[in-house]
Amino acid sequence: MRFRTQDIMPPPIVKLIDAARRYTSSPGFLNLGQGLPGHVPPERALVALRDRLSHPATHVYSPDEGMLELREELAIYLRRTSKIDVNPQDELVITAGANNAFAGAMMALLHQGQKVVMPTPYYFNSVMAVEMLGGQVVEVAGLKGFQPDPATIESAMDDDTCAVFLITPNNPTGAVYERNTVDRIVDVCIERDIPLISDETYASMIFDDATHYSPRSRRDAIDHVITLGSFSKDFGMSGWRIGYVIGPEEFIQEYLKVQDTITICAPTAGQLLALEVLKSGLDFIEDELRRLGLLRELAYLRASEIDALELERTKGTFYMFPHVKGCEDSKRLVLDILQSTEMLVLPGSIFGASGEGHIRLSFGPLTPEAVDEAFDRLAGFFKEN
Amino acid sequence: MRFRTQDIMPPPIVKLIDAARRYTSSPGFLNLGQGLPGHVPPERALVALRDRLSHPATHVYSPDEGMLELREELAIYLRRTSKIDVNPQDELVITAGANNAFAGAMMALLHQGQKVVMPTPYYFNSVMAVEMLGGQVVEVAGLKGFQPDPATIESAMDDDTCAVFLITPNNPTGAVYERNTVDRIVDVCIERDIPLISDETYASMIFDDATHYSPRSRRDAIDHVITLGSFSKDFGMSGWRIGYVIGPEEFIQEYLKVQDTITICAPTAGQLLALEVLKSGLDFIEDELRRLGLLRELAYLRASEIDALELERTKGTFYMFPHVKGCEDSKRLVLDILQSTEMLVLPGSIFGASGEGHIRLSFGPLTPEAVDEAFDRLAGFFKEN
Repeated sequence: MRFRTQDIMPPPIVKLIDAARRYTSSPGFLNLGQGLPGHVPPERALVALRDRLSHPATHVYSPDEGMLELREELAIYLRRTSKIDVNPQDELVITAGANNAFAGAMMALLHQGQKVVMPTPYYFNSVMAVEMLGGQVVEVAGLKGFQPDPATIESAMDDDTCAVFLITPNNPTGAVYERNTVDRIVDVCIERDIPLISDETYASMIFDDATHYSPRSRRDAIDHVITLGSFSKDFGMSGWRIGYVIGPEEFIQEYLKVQDTITICAPTAGQLLALEVLKSGLDFIEDELRRLGLLRELAYLRASEIDALELERTKGTFYMFPHVKGCEDSKRLVLDILQSTEMLVLPGSIFGASGEGHIRLSFGPLTPEAVDEAFDRLAGFFKEN
Repeated sequence: MRFRTQDIMPPPIVKLIDAARRYTSSPGFLNLGQGLPGHVPPERALVALRDRLSHPATHVYSPDEGMLELREELAIYLRRTSKIDVNPQDELVITAGANNAFAGAMMALLHQGQKVVMPTPYYFNSVMAVEMLGGQVVEVAGLKGFQPDPATIESAMDDDTCAVFLITPNNPTGAVYERNTVDRIVDVCIERDIPLISDETYASMIFDDATHYSPRSRRDAIDHVITLGSFSKDFGMSGWRIGYVIGPEEFIQEYLKVQDTITICAPTAGQLLALEVLKSGLDFIEDELRRLGLLRELAYLRASEIDALELERTKGTFYMFPHVKGCEDSKRLVLDILQSTEMLVLPGSIFGASGEGHIRLSFGPLTPEAVDEAFDRLAGFFKEN
C-alpha cells in the first residue's frame, strides 16, 4: 500500500505513551503529558443521563447538525461566556470534538496546495490535518508572552492563503490573546477576505485579570470568523467527544457535507450529557477553576525555584510551557526526564519550530501533592543534568 | 469563502428530512428513510453502563486505538461471526462509526487524483468522502441480484486505482455477496496489489440460506484487505458512533495518524457500552434478527402485490431496493410519495447511476402494522400515479 499519510508525523502523544509504557505501570508514574482537567460532569447531570439511557432515542443518530435543544442551550451559554451571538439553527454544528471540527473545517475550506497561517507554537493535530489534506502550514513566530504577531501574520499571507488559525487561550502556552492583537488580525482577515479560524476550547480557563476575547463578538467579523469549541475541558468530558463549530450559514452548509461524511453526527448520549450539564448549572466549573487557580500558583512558585526553567507567566489553561536553558532537543530531554523521574511531559518541538527548547507541563488532573512531587523530581533532574 | 466541497452533493438524507419537515410532525408520518434497526442495547448492558458513569475514567479519552479490552472482545466476536483472525493489538482500531472509518481509510490511502472502484449501487457517503479528498469514484454496474461483477471491476482498474470498495451485505440493495464472486475480486486485488476495502456493517443481518463471506478470512488476502464494521446496526447503537477498522499493521500505523487528527478516539462511554454488550451475551441480536426476518417476509409479500414494483429478493439487511416501472426521476418520485402518502423513502439515484429508477425502503424499526400500512399507502399511490 502507498500511503497519502506517509510524510505525516505519527501522533506524538501516542508515541510518547508507547515509550512511557515501561513506566506507566509504576506506582510512582506521574503523567503531565495529555491535556486533561481534573473534574468530571456533575452528579446531577449523570443522574439525568442514567435515566435517559432507558429512552430508545438516546441510542440512535441525532440530526447531523446536533440536537436542536443542545444547540439552543449552547447559544445561550456562548452569549453569556464569550459574548457572541449565534443562531443555533443555521450557524452551529455539534461535532465529535474540536479536533474533529478543525479537520472538518479544513475539509470544507482547504484546496490542494493552499496554506494556513499559524502562529507558533501551534497545536500539532492542526498541522497534521492541513498536511493530510494536501495543504501547507506557514509558521509565524509570536511575540513576547506568546502573543501572536499581527504584522508577521499579515506578511505571511499571500494568494494561496486559505485561512489564519488562532488558539486562544492557547495550547501549549496558556497565553490568552489580547483584544488589540486579535482585533488587528481580524482586520487583516476581513481586508484580505480570508477566514480566521479561532479555536476557543479553553475559553473558560482564564485566570488573574485576563478576559477571553472571541473574534466573532465583533459584528463586522461574523462573515470571516469560524469559531471552534469543545465540552472536553471545561465540562470535564473529553471522553464523550463533543465539540462544536460556528460560522456563517454558507460555511455551515458546506460543513454539513463533511459532517455527514466523516462523522454523521456527534454521539447522541454525549450531546444529552452536555445538555444536562448546561441545564443543571455550571457552578462545578467555578469549583474546578478555583482548584486549577491554586494549582497554577503552586506550579509557578515551584517552577520559579528551578534555575534551568525560563518561564513567562501566562493567564490561561492548565499548561505551562517553560523554556529549558541550553535545551536543543526537547524530544531527547523528555525521554531523559521520563527515564530519570518516571514522569511524562511533552517536548516543545511537536508544537512547531519555535517550541523547540521548551517542554509542556499539563497539571490539570493533579493534586497539589502531585504537583509538588513533580517539581521535586524536575528540580532533582535538572540539578543532576 | 471558497469551498473545497462546493461540488460535493449535500447530505441527501438531511436534505430529504428537511423536505419532509412539513410531514414529520404529522401523527401519520412513516419514516422508511434512514437506515436503523428496531432494537437498542439490552438492559443488562445499560445497567452496567449506568454504573460505569460513576467512574472518572468513563469521562476521559481512551487510547487513540480504542480500549484494549474492547478490541480483545471484538476480535473474539469476529473470529466467531466472520471467521476472521485479527490481532487486537496491531490490526484493529475502534472508530467513531464505519463512515468515520471509511473516510479515515481514504485519508490514509487516497492520493490526489486517484480513483476508487465501486460497484453501483453504492453508499453515497463513500462517494462524498472520495471526492472531498480529491479522488474520483469509478462506478461499475453490477450483475443480476445486485452481485458485483469481477470482470468489469478488473477492467475498470488502472494505474490510478487506489482501492476497490465493496459493501456486503449491501446498503442499499440488501445483496449478500457470494463467496465465488468476492474471491474473484480478491484475486484481482492481490494480483494488482490494490487494497480491497470491505464494509461489513451488516454482517450479522443475513437471512434465508445465505452466509456472510469476509475477504479477510482468506489468509493470502490479509495484506490486501481493509475491513470496516460497526456496532450501529446489529448492536442497535447508531447514536453512540462506534465502529472499527481492521487491516495489516502497516495500514493501521498510518490510520492512527488520521484517527488522532480527525477523531482522537471513539467515544469512551460508547466503547464501554459495546464492551458490556459483547460480554453480556448476544441473544438480543438473535431476537432482533427473528423480528426482522418476519418483517422481511411481510414486506416482500406486500411488495409483490404492487405491479409498479420490480423486486429481486436479496438476503441481507433491512432494506429493499425495488425498481419502479417507468421511473426516470427517483428524486421527483420520492417527493411525490412524501406529499401524497406522508411517507419518506430514499431515491435510488443517490446510490449511483444504476440506482436511478429505484427507491430504497428501510423497514428496520417498523412494527408489522406499520409495514402493512406503508405498503397500503404505496399501493394506493401507484394505483393513482
